[in-house]
Amino acid sequence: MCPGEVLVNIVAIAGGVGGAKMAHGLVQAFPGANLSIIVNIGDDFEHFGLKICPDLDTVCYTLAGLANPQTGWGRADETWEAYQVASQLGGPDWFHLGDRDLGVHLERTRRLLAGQPLSQVTRDFCEAWGIEAKVLPATDDPVPTWVETAEGSLPFQEYFVRRRCEPEVRSFSFRGIEHARPAPGVLEAIRQAEAIVICPSNPWVSVDPVLGIPGIRSSLVEHRQTGCHLAAVSPIIGGKTIKGPAAKMFAELGIPPSALAVAAHYEGLVSDFFLDAVDSVQAGPIAELGIRPWVTDTVMNRVEDRRRLAQEVLGRLRVEKGEMLA
Amino acid sequence: MCPGEVLVNIVAIAGGVGGAKMAHGLVQAFPGANLSIIVNIGDDFEHFGLKICPDLDTVCYTLAGLANPQTGWGRADETWEAYQVASQLGGPDWFHLGDRDLGVHLERTRRLLAGQPLSQVTRDFCEAWGIEAKVLPATDDPVPTWVETAEGSLPFQEYFVRRRCEPEVRSFSFRGIEHARPAPGVLEAIRQAEAIVICPSNPWVSVDPVLGIPGIRSSLVEHRQTGCHLAAVSPIIGGKTIKGPAAKMFAELGIPPSALAVAAHYEGLVSDFFLDAVDSVQAGPIAELGIRPWVTDTVMNRVEDRRRLAQEVLGRLRVEKGEMLA
Repeated sequence: MCPGEVLVNIVAIAGGVGGAKMAHGLVQAFPGANLSIIVNIGDDFEHFGLKICPDLDTVCYTLAGLANPQTGWGRADETWEAYQVASQLGGPDWFHLGDRDLGVHLERTRRLLAGQPLSQVTRDFCEAWGIEAKVLPATDDPVPTWVETAEGSLPFQEYFVRRRCEPEVRSFSFRGIEHARPAPGVLEAIRQAEAIVICPSNPWVSVDPVLGIPGIRSSLVEHRQTGCHLAAVSPIIGGKTIKGPAAKMFAELGIPPSALAVAAHYEGLVSDFFLDAVDSVQAGPIAELGIRPWVTDTVMNRVEDRRRLAQEVLGRLRVEKGEMLA
Repeated sequence: MCPGEVLVNIVAIAGGVGGAKMAHGLVQAFPGANLSIIVNIGDDFEHFGLKICPDLDTVCYTLAGLANPQTGWGRADETWEAYQVASQLGGPDWFHLGDRDLGVHLERTRRLLAGQPLSQVTRDFCEAWGIEAKVLPATDDPVPTWVETAEGSLPFQEYFVRRRCEPEVRSFSFRGIEHARPAPGVLEAIRQAEAIVICPSNPWVSVDPVLGIPGIRSSLVEHRQTGCHLAAVSPIIGGKTIKGPAAKMFAELGIPPSALAVAAHYEGLVSDFFLDAVDSVQAGPIAELGIRPWVTDTVMNRVEDRRRLAQEVLGRLRVEKGEMLA
């Protein structure tokens, strides 16, 4: 591949909100690319008997233009009739379920019960929504995230939504991950990629449950050895997160939350690391980890921000790769 | 019990629409009575992973004033967001699911999955809805109705809603009914009853799946032998039904649909039978079955009709019982 050549095969590894924004930026910036988005399913859970996949839905709703831009979850123009009735009957009200969102969970649950794998369901939904990117659940197998806290083990959504991340975190586990298999298309996408980007998602509960699926991390490492760049974008800016509990988790695990801490988490995996300009002093220490640091504006409030960041990330990787191969 | 004494313990056996109207009439006519409504659950089914109990919901929605008076099923002031989304994603659209109705199915399913029996769930829902009558599912065990047709076996809702009762009926089965146990309160209600009314519901698919649960029919027969009157109201008027396929079923089973045919179906069980004035010529043949016929106006279009019919039915039973015991 030569400098300036257009990237055609891109892989993004994504959790929820930050991952969805980055994926959206990549779609905007490289509309002709073959973009595969490998999405965390560790926070999937069953509620009212329905299978709910928060990260998959956030990514899909964002790409389809259906997302609620205010909340970061759920759909725009939502109604709440079913949720209100269930709550009035004594049902749990800690996880908000909009009526349109419910329609997705209903049909997903129906198909899963009929034996369709999640990757197939997601493919069909993306087709119905006009999403051209390949949205791939990391695995079709359940790998539910449990959070070990000072108050005991909690299923992820109980910790994240019901308890609002209040209990102090000690560790995470992704139950059954040792037996999970990458979903169809995941390893192929990695092997074909000219660039791979770990989105600014939570390293602990959004990216680790993807990397921990047997075969995924090793495929990433192998593929990087062929010359493919593997970048991560820091979800931590100025010691905080735009959204979500990553910074709180780092602190509770005894690691000062910083872009450097995220880079160190990915040491041995990523070749490039994008950190925000407010954290520029951490570029040096990141370089000492053997990771190329890139300082830029990583906040993605507007669609233009998403596109610009995606362009910059892919642009850097392309130039760098061309230079390395030259 | 003396003539003129107020009935205090009433049992109604009910299916969906006709049963709900009669039950509503009983509530209106005897607000201080201890009314237990034993409801068919043979047409319960799972759809999109949710447990749906059409007859229970029709009875409860009607008693709570939440029913849609136009359709005979579902709720008034309903919205359809979830259903439309699921349909757009390729989901089955033959069973209409309103958003508020869905809220009930969600919370019911959650409780059943958590191990609560259906009778407990129903009791809690009735309390939330302010329903004072005891609404009792006939059993907490599944007894799904299957319809044997000229086109093969069909689960009831596939036959009833999806196929609109088109396939020709040969017989019915209620799978697992031989092992089903009456729900808590059912046999007690029967044993305490001063009057028992089989509502104008479909004998084949609404009443038989109640009577077929081991212990229910025998308790009814035993209790009648103690002097309790057991009446049925004909769902067939002038050879037709107000709603539903009962008349079509009679015809396909080789039995001319008539009030007499319904009375014959309950021969050996009921003491009294209420038929519409248009069918008055059938009173004689019904009397020959050993069943006391009562000719009246059985159409229940308005709330006043429901109350009047309930008053008449209970009034006749009371007088008769008083006369018998005198």
